[in-house]
Amino acid sequence: MEYAVIMAGGIGSRFWPASRKEHPKQFLEVFGRSTLIQNTVARLNGLIPPERCLIVTHERYVEKTKRQLPAVPDENILAEPISRNTAPCIAYAGVTLAERDPDATMVVLPADHVIGDVQAFHDVLNVALAKAQDDRSLVTIGIEPDHPATGYGYIQYDGPDFDEVDEPTAYPVKTFAEKPDEKTAERFIDSGDFLWNSGMFIWRADTILDQIEEHLPDAHEAFEPVRAVVGTAQERERLERAFQNSPRISIDNGVMERSSDIFVVPGSFGWNDVGDWKAVYDQNVQMNNDDDQGNVVHDDQPALLHNSSRCYVQSGERLVALVGMHDTVVVDTDDALLVCNRENAQQVKQVVEYLHAHQFEAYV
Amino acid sequence: MEYAVIMAGGIGSRFWPASRKEHPKQFLEVFGRSTLIQNTVARLNGLIPPERCLIVTHERYVEKTKRQLPAVPDENILAEPISRNTAPCIAYAGVTLAERDPDATMVVLPADHVIGDVQAFHDVLNVALAKAQDDRSLVTIGIEPDHPATGYGYIQYDGPDFDEVDEPTAYPVKTFAEKPDEKTAERFIDSGDFLWNSGMFIWRADTILDQIEEHLPDAHEAFEPVRAVVGTAQERERLERAFQNSPRISIDNGVMERSSDIFVVPGSFGWNDVGDWKAVYDQNVQMNNDDDQGNVVHDDQPALLHNSSRCYVQSGERLVALVGMHDTVVVDTDDALLVCNRENAQQVKQVVEYLHAHQFEAYV
Repeated sequence: MEYAVIMAGGIGSRFWPASRKEHPKQFLEVFGRSTLIQNTVARLNGLIPPERCLIVTHERYVEKTKRQLPAVPDENILAEPISRNTAPCIAYAGVTLAERDPDATMVVLPADHVIGDVQAFHDVLNVALAKAQDDRSLVTIGIEPDHPATGYGYIQYDGPDFDEVDEPTAYPVKTFAEKPDEKTAERFIDSGDFLWNSGMFIWRADTILDQIEEHLPDAHEAFEPVRAVVGTAQERERLERAFQNSPRISIDNGVMERSSDIFVVPGSFGWNDVGDWKAVYDQNVQMNNDDDQGNVVHDDQPALLHNSSRCYVQSGERLVALVGMHDTVVVDTDDALLVCNRENAQQVKQVVEYLHAHQFEAYV
Repeated sequence: MEYAVIMAGGIGSRFWPASRKEHPKQFLEVFGRSTLIQNTVARLNGLIPPERCLIVTHERYVEKTKRQLPAVPDENILAEPISRNTAPCIAYAGVTLAERDPDATMVVLPADHVIGDVQAFHDVLNVALAKAQDDRSLVTIGIEPDHPATGYGYIQYDGPDFDEVDEPTAYPVKTFAEKPDEKTAERFIDSGDFLWNSGMFIWRADTILDQIEEHLPDAHEAFEPVRAVVGTAQERERLERAFQNSPRISIDNGVMERSSDIFVVPGSFGWNDVGDWKAVYDQNVQMNNDDDQGNVVHDDQPALLHNSSRCYVQSGERLVALVGMHDTVVVDTDDALLVCNRENAQQVKQVVEYLHAHQFEAYV
């Protein structure tokens, strides 16, 4: 059976002040009135029902997750006692699923992405699922790039240039590349066989557990004791030890880059990883949520934009007025306000670091 | 005896959202922790004590005025039943003072200006007072201009260029000029005998009442009946009729431009009429309240300015963070937020007009 494993452990400090330690990005209503994690579950409709969606998140977000996703059964919310990286998260989901259904296939998805063309996304996932089930391969999704982005990792594959491919197809992966500099990114784009690494994976639970055993024996050893107690009173205690003993490593570095039998399905379905407020603005423009001057006001909140253009405004109860402003992000919350040049959106992370370092924990 | 008549009837919509109909500019703490009207009274210290300061304001601001100026006697707060222009305001103060002290001289001052060099200001006022008392002239203060401003009226006088004058002196006024266009303003500056019209006037109460009788007979007729009932229970009723019957006209248009015996004392004492948020920023820079990047944060409020320069931030309880912003004004209040390009500060008035026109009265 197919299951989704949605990774929702992130903090998303680049979405400050909307995102906080207690209310991170995946739980935000970034587009319209449903949250990113709600959208992630909803877009699997027709492929994987909520009853077969598992959410892996930090303990502190379990209640919030349950409230936002009432259709997902409580036992499908997997609580991480400590935030590690993606390899422990996937090992935890892997042992849980393998124990519940020895024939389980996992579609591993980040909780905070946006996808424009859901049908195209399903088509790609179906090809990936078939490959993972029939050949017991590790499969990942690669996004056909439309510009030389430096903010993503890249995947090189062995096959025709992606713009010559009509039907979703699984191709062998040649290499994984870290986030490149600008020149390298341009070379990647020109080559025609580099894709953006989406962080989405498809594999059988037993396949990934075998691969973890082979490439990350410490992680295997840490999580193997959990398997026997899944769903029992002992799980919490063993889990804590497992997370403490497991290496802190991403599944990309720990398994994907070390394994030889990896496939990628190139896809083009309006993907956006919504990495910062600039990406939120861009995605809104993509969705035609902007006015004649290119301004986007979140959720039709009260805002007055006078001689202003290409701005993004997200407010709460307060009336926001912009006069003579351009390319500016304004995010207003109860206790904190951000006014940011759209091109500096990545630096919001530094604001949060500053707040941490200067005893402004109440605002983090 | 000398009295100050401080005109405090304005609404100051260019200071939205800090200024509101119920809380206009003169009652704001724009610089430090005292308000503009408090500063206006305080800077007369040594020349005119608070017991001889009269405040003319709209009825709705009487209580606020009393609270902010406890040293000013209650009977010195003159309540206008309706907001007219400056001629009715001065006629009201004139009859009140003439009745209380037949020998009264009035120093008429706007409530919302800033003056850097108080001693130089007093020196100028003393010369103006002597001229008004000795010769029973109408005297006004002209500000020696330092740039071709288009936002002020100008006064041309008969005398040496102002940069050749060392001691404050009263010169005959040749003409009053309305706010000029840029070319005219440049011509004014080059001429050396044009000053900015400060809106400050010095005259005996009986002199201005005579002049009003001559040039504004309707205003004279409206306010003459008030004189006999100053300080009695009948005053309020007669006053309402007086304001209703008086022409709505400025003292400049109604008397100064029509009279032949007007004098001006040129002055240079760091005057700023604080017309908009840009002027607030400039004045703060003048007072060295800016940091190394030219940012001004009002009253040391919590603000975090990252890669930002030449910004003005005024907030309340909320933490404000700016990222990559320049030349931007941010004014945050409980229910409304303004983000404004500093060079568009004049347009804030249009925001308030829009709010009036679109049923946002709660925010005005």
